[in-house]
Amino acid sequence: MNGQTKRWINDTTTTDSSCATPGAQSIRASAFNVWSSLTDVEAASVAAWLFSQTAFNLTGTEDAGEWDNSLLMIELMEPNKTDVLNYLDYGGPEPERYAHVIIDHRADVDPYYQDLLVPLPIQNGTTEAEFLTYPYTRKTNGQVRNLDASLDADWSTWMYNVTASILDITLDLWSGSALGLDNDTLDVWGIDPLMQDDGIIRWDTFWNLPTSEMDSGTLLPLGLFFKSNVTGRDPSLWTFDGWLYNDIFYPTTDASRAAYYSPGFEKLPANIDGSWGWTDQMGTPPPLDTVYPPLAIASSGSRYFTDADQQYVKWMDFEFYISFSRDTGMRLHNIKYKGERVIYELGLQEALAHYAGNDPVQSGTSYLDTFYGFGTYAFELVKGYDCPTYATYLNSTFYTSETTHTHIDSICLFETEGNYPIQRHSTSQYVAATKNIYFTIRNVCTVGNYDYMFSYEFYIDGSINVDVRASGYIQSAYFAKNQDYRYHIHDALSGSMHDHVLNFKIDFDILGTANTMTTTTNVPVSEVYPWSNGKARDTMKLQRTEITNEDEGKLDWNGNGATQFTVVNKDVTNAFGEYRGYRILPSSPTIHLTVLNSSNLVNAANWAKHDLFVTRQHDTEPRSSHPYQSQDVANPPINFDEFFDGENLEQEDIVVWANVGMHHVPHTGDLPTTLFTIAHSGLAITPLNYFETSPVKETVNMVRVDYGGGNTSNVVTFGQGVPACIVGDVESLVPDLSEYLGDSVVRKFPYDPNEPYYETDSIE
Amino acid sequence: MNGQTKRWINDTTTTDSSCATPGAQSIRASAFNVWSSLTDVEAASVAAWLFSQTAFNLTGTEDAGEWDNSLLMIELMEPNKTDVLNYLDYGGPEPERYAHVIIDHRADVDPYYQDLLVPLPIQNGTTEAEFLTYPYTRKTNGQVRNLDASLDADWSTWMYNVTASILDITLDLWSGSALGLDNDTLDVWGIDPLMQDDGIIRWDTFWNLPTSEMDSGTLLPLGLFFKSNVTGRDPSLWTFDGWLYNDIFYPTTDASRAAYYSPGFEKLPANIDGSWGWTDQMGTPPPLDTVYPPLAIASSGSRYFTDADQQYVKWMDFEFYISFSRDTGMRLHNIKYKGERVIYELGLQEALAHYAGNDPVQSGTSYLDTFYGFGTYAFELVKGYDCPTYATYLNSTFYTSETTHTHIDSICLFETEGNYPIQRHSTSQYVAATKNIYFTIRNVCTVGNYDYMFSYEFYIDGSINVDVRASGYIQSAYFAKNQDYRYHIHDALSGSMHDHVLNFKIDFDILGTANTMTTTTNVPVSEVYPWSNGKARDTMKLQRTEITNEDEGKLDWNGNGATQFTVVNKDVTNAFGEYRGYRILPSSPTIHLTVLNSSNLVNAANWAKHDLFVTRQHDTEPRSSHPYQSQDVANPPINFDEFFDGENLEQEDIVVWANVGMHHVPHTGDLPTTLFTIAHSGLAITPLNYFETSPVKETVNMVRVDYGGGNTSNVVTFGQGVPACIVGDVESLVPDLSEYLGDSVVRKFPYDPNEPYYETDSIE
Repeated sequence: MNGQTKRWINDTTTTDSSCATPGAQSIRASAFNVWSSLTDVEAASVAAWLFSQTAFNLTGTEDAGEWDNSLLMIELMEPNKTDVLNYLDYGGPEPERYAHVIIDHRADVDPYYQDLLVPLPIQNGTTEAEFLTYPYTRKTNGQVRNLDASLDADWSTWMYNVTASILDITLDLWSGSALGLDNDTLDVWGIDPLMQDDGIIRWDTFWNLPTSEMDSGTLLPLGLFFKSNVTGRDPSLWTFDGWLYNDIFYPTTDASRAAYYSPGFEKLPANIDGSWGWTDQMGTPPPLDTVYPPLAIASSGSRYFTDADQQYVKWMDFEFYISFSRDTGMRLHNIKYKGERVIYELGLQEALAHYAGNDPVQSGTSYLDTFYGFGTYAFELVKGYDCPTYATYLNSTFYTSETTHTHIDSICLFETEGNYPIQRHSTSQYVAATKNIYFTIRNVCTVGNYDYMFSYEFYIDGSINVDVRASGYIQSAYFAKNQDYRYHIHDALSGSMHDHVLNFKIDFDILGTANTMTTTTNVPVSEVYPWSNGKARDTMKLQRTEITNEDEGKLDWNGNGATQFTVVNKDVTNAFGEYRGYRILPSSPTIHLTVLNSSNLVNAANWAKHDLFVTRQHDTEPRSSHPYQSQDVANPPINFDEFFDGENLEQEDIVVWANVGMHHVPHTGDLPTTLFTIAHSGLAITPLNYFETSPVKETVNMVRVDYGGGNTSNVVTFGQGVPACIVGDVESLVPDLSEYLGDSVVRKFPYDPNEPYYETDSIE
Repeated sequence: MNGQTKRWINDTTTTDSSCATPGAQSIRASAFNVWSSLTDVEAASVAAWLFSQTAFNLTGTEDAGEWDNSLLMIELMEPNKTDVLNYLDYGGPEPERYAHVIIDHRADVDPYYQDLLVPLPIQNGTTEAEFLTYPYTRKTNGQVRNLDASLDADWSTWMYNVTASILDITLDLWSGSALGLDNDTLDVWGIDPLMQDDGIIRWDTFWNLPTSEMDSGTLLPLGLFFKSNVTGRDPSLWTFDGWLYNDIFYPTTDASRAAYYSPGFEKLPANIDGSWGWTDQMGTPPPLDTVYPPLAIASSGSRYFTDADQQYVKWMDFEFYISFSRDTGMRLHNIKYKGERVIYELGLQEALAHYAGNDPVQSGTSYLDTFYGFGTYAFELVKGYDCPTYATYLNSTFYTSETTHTHIDSICLFETEGNYPIQRHSTSQYVAATKNIYFTIRNVCTVGNYDYMFSYEFYIDGSINVDVRASGYIQSAYFAKNQDYRYHIHDALSGSMHDHVLNFKIDFDILGTANTMTTTTNVPVSEVYPWSNGKARDTMKLQRTEITNEDEGKLDWNGNGATQFTVVNKDVTNAFGEYRGYRILPSSPTIHLTVLNSSNLVNAANWAKHDLFVTRQHDTEPRSSHPYQSQDVANPPINFDEFFDGENLEQEDIVVWANVGMHHVPHTGDLPTTLFTIAHSGLAITPLNYFETSPVKETVNMVRVDYGGGNTSNVVTFGQGVPACIVGDVESLVPDLSEYLGDSVVRKFPYDPNEPYYETDSIE
């Protein structure tokens, strides 16, 4: 082709129409979303039935005291894969639905959390709940002890006695008090999990309360710690076991008081709230900062389909279903590419934040965040900030306190035009490039101080990227004598070193369920070749292995990234005889837990010990963690190590459990908040010999420019679309955040479908 | 604040004006760009002077034969840091400018490349060139032997004799010939570097030529290899040393011919060009693919400044100068943040692609790409594909063949609105988020088959990201018996395993030149605490070290990312007593070279053996590599190992040499081209305790939304700008690629400033 060709091959439309309004295209999912949340009616019927069963002896959550049983959760019990595949792949019936119920059984000197399974629909007279045991390695009737049962009112009373006993000191040191009064300026909280090897031990510490609405409380530790033995449910048997200040332990209040008032006692400074801990704009904006920055637009509307009823999404050649749970938030199911399932289930299992320090509160803290729940805290997204202006949104629901909450617009969907092409090549005659347009589904969960952003990205080459970012406030430490654990970041403040490790389940089904994890390692070798004249050459080659059984199933990324891990189906080769598969690798650096045999966790987070794991899929091993692991760390409901019992992994239905995460040694750049750009970790899941060529060639979002002689170009656009419309006022594209709502709540017991109402204050 | 506030605090403008035309704001750099390329006049004067000096005995490049001396390069000699700091920091004079000249001295039985230094301006009668020796560890008058001197015409003649000797076989196997004729359908080429330990040995192989303009030649190997001993300049002394086919070595043509025509000889299939190797669109576009995808716009214009004359750029609180060289393309200089220099020099040093295989061509290939040059191949960028539609562009120039080439629009500058915020935090009362607007300067260099995209990204927290992506065509291997080195990816084709390692110089100057590399490592410990009741607790802590001298200066990223590497100035602490510094870490996985003591490279790429290196800065050690390392791999001009001579590194001017790269075992997804999304590696350079708080707070591109009760919002926008304009026709925002030019060339000898002209065909 020579000379100047038409710039847009299909530029036949006029350009005076308004640009499309964003909004996903509608589609009907081909199957029922078997992972869909319970309907309001389902959840209400279960709640009503449970309350009707006197054996459960339930009290409404808002009325329940420390010695009352209450209902913690009613949610869909994830159906067994066996049943789901029978439905999806073999035309079998929809799997029967079960409610997963958790009862907080506190009307007992030995309180426990009770997992129950309730068949749906509720049929009065025939419905029977059963203990939910099969998904747990610990076979104790679905029961886990409850260490918190008396740590509400009883603990407050007891704790304020302690804090009152040193009121003179808190006033002297910090002009503050923690007495349970409205004018308290101090807060008291401490470790999680509680220490469990020698009775049930709490360590708590004093914190200044923030002086504004800003959430800076975790930046205000005061450096005085106390130990309480809270074993058992009788507060009169609890013991106060000592103070720690400036790295000195005082076994009694008398001893600490005597020291405090003795000459030369070193009083340490306080951490005081202020604008240094607030996120509001401060300081001189950089040059041109007030000019409106670039923004992305979707002038031709959205290019993906959703079935909001079935929580089904289809973008280009990808499609999947969404589920949403209290514990872990959003998960993806039955992810297909070009009509073939690649992943049966992809989702967060647990998130660990393991701290360390010289003080017992930092040393003793190892949050397992599903205890608090991710789904619970998936707030409405901030349009134009959390997601691009043109994103579309889905709601999510979760159960808590006898209500189903709806987080409006808490899941966003959007395409991004990467600022670089997905492929390009130049020669002296032509240049060819293809746009990198990728699709993201995202939610953000704020578990206390930290905001986790979970993004699943889909690419036109068939790749999936699991991306986790962390922002929000650090949990900081008092700076006294903790130099081996921190940087000193403010007046009397230090960052508190911690490891974030987040476990994801990736249930691969590569062209069927019979799959094998293979490795390919670059190794240096010294090798003589037929042509090398008898001389050995220092070079490299590939070493290949297979993970044949669960004894070999605990894996770490190799040093220097030398090993490729690829899940293949050995029964399915491509045209050139290579196993078709998907590779898994870090897309940005990941970690596993630094700590060996953690005293805090014992057996509660054995999934954090390596980078990735391969196990045989079992309906009885659906998850690597349980929200109440922290309640009995030595004997948690799920001891992940017990998944590894030597089972064959060659051409079996295998599950990969992979960790993302980061070591975090907070520094001044983490003030006031940690940055998503830095606290970032991800996994790529990418086709390897899955096709005979890259599907990237199928998109028309590419161009070839032929050139030569310096003044001639021939532009081939392959039938790509034209943004033939008028945007108009750019400001109109920017979401109006005055419509930000917070939370919608539907009360479920007593259930009145006619009165849904907003109740954002109820969110903790 | 309660109730509904005004959505945009400063929304006082009308919204009916047209959006700004992109284009960087103008600024005058405060200092002369001492790294700026030679002017046309400078380069021409040097060329004229060199040609006037009979001692150099120069012939014009286009006329020069194998026994003529010619001029390979005239470029600015990078000024010594000592002189530059005297100018920039102490008001001293502009450093004197020198031209760096390379002469290809071939009029000699022992040909060599000669590096010369010529003082500027040229003063006839007084100018004297000197051997350029000081930047090289090998002290041989700036001379490197030239192994290629007779590998042009003489080699062609010789090689076509070899290929003609088996014409019957090439016709029989591939219906093709390589005879140096216009109707040749075969190509012949082979290893780089040449083997040098036993004479000078070539291994070459046959390739099918592409059948279209598409650059698919590297996908068409044919599996027949031959060995030539090309020692010395007399082709009559060269020897033909054998054939290799199907992993069988035949020492003579007679032997291979006898085998070929013997019964049972296994003839292997050919790799045939076709659409499988072409990048043009093929196959069914995915659903909605022809709808125009999202695109980013800069409705309010560009928010950065450039001084195109001085190649100076300022974005927000960052500023820097650009230089451009033949060898390595774009480098950045004097990078300041908030007025303080952070990095004196940041730029590519060398790129290695080390292959391996069972055949001698793959096994013998270890490209050191500065031999070909990055600057030479930094073509015009494809607007809207290589960079967003609204990017602005700078030109770059480089010298080759007595001309200064100008690559028009070969450097792009732009901001990106990340599709996630840089920070956010939700509570039950408010949500706060800050946009992640970052700045990129980018160029793309296509060195033969591979397209390297180099992006330097700048963030509002003071971070810099060095980002390298690779696309283009793989160099593939013939598939016979090479199963230990590849996947089988097409008919008779395999990927050829290789390591990409790219070395970057990062000359940190953290608040002065006296800096120290420190490490902080997360280590598991078992520790008794004053409060732990005598019990040891399994936890972790930090272990800190300093890299005190060059004996400790070769470093690898620790397993599990356990070690933080931070360059600090120990004489400058922040308000809390921590050393101010910048940390360096992988932003996406990086590698160093797998091969140990590479037979191909010997001492030519010792910089590839570890992940990062720390050395003392010396004006005599400006670069880790030289473009002619390949000519004498055992004794290259720069043996990087010799930089390490035990010098003190504590509070000295230190340089970090850091590698990015990836292991690449090509699979079918690399057909037709490798993807930028997958072949990606990067380094983050990020402030650590550099300030007392994050500068992110200074931007107004943030929002706080107060909420509660479900229907009230208060939106605080901190004075941020409004995109108050009409975009109009979106199509008008999309660059017109029919203006893509290719290359502009200004001939320099004979020099006629009145006749610049386009000559894209001259680009190789």
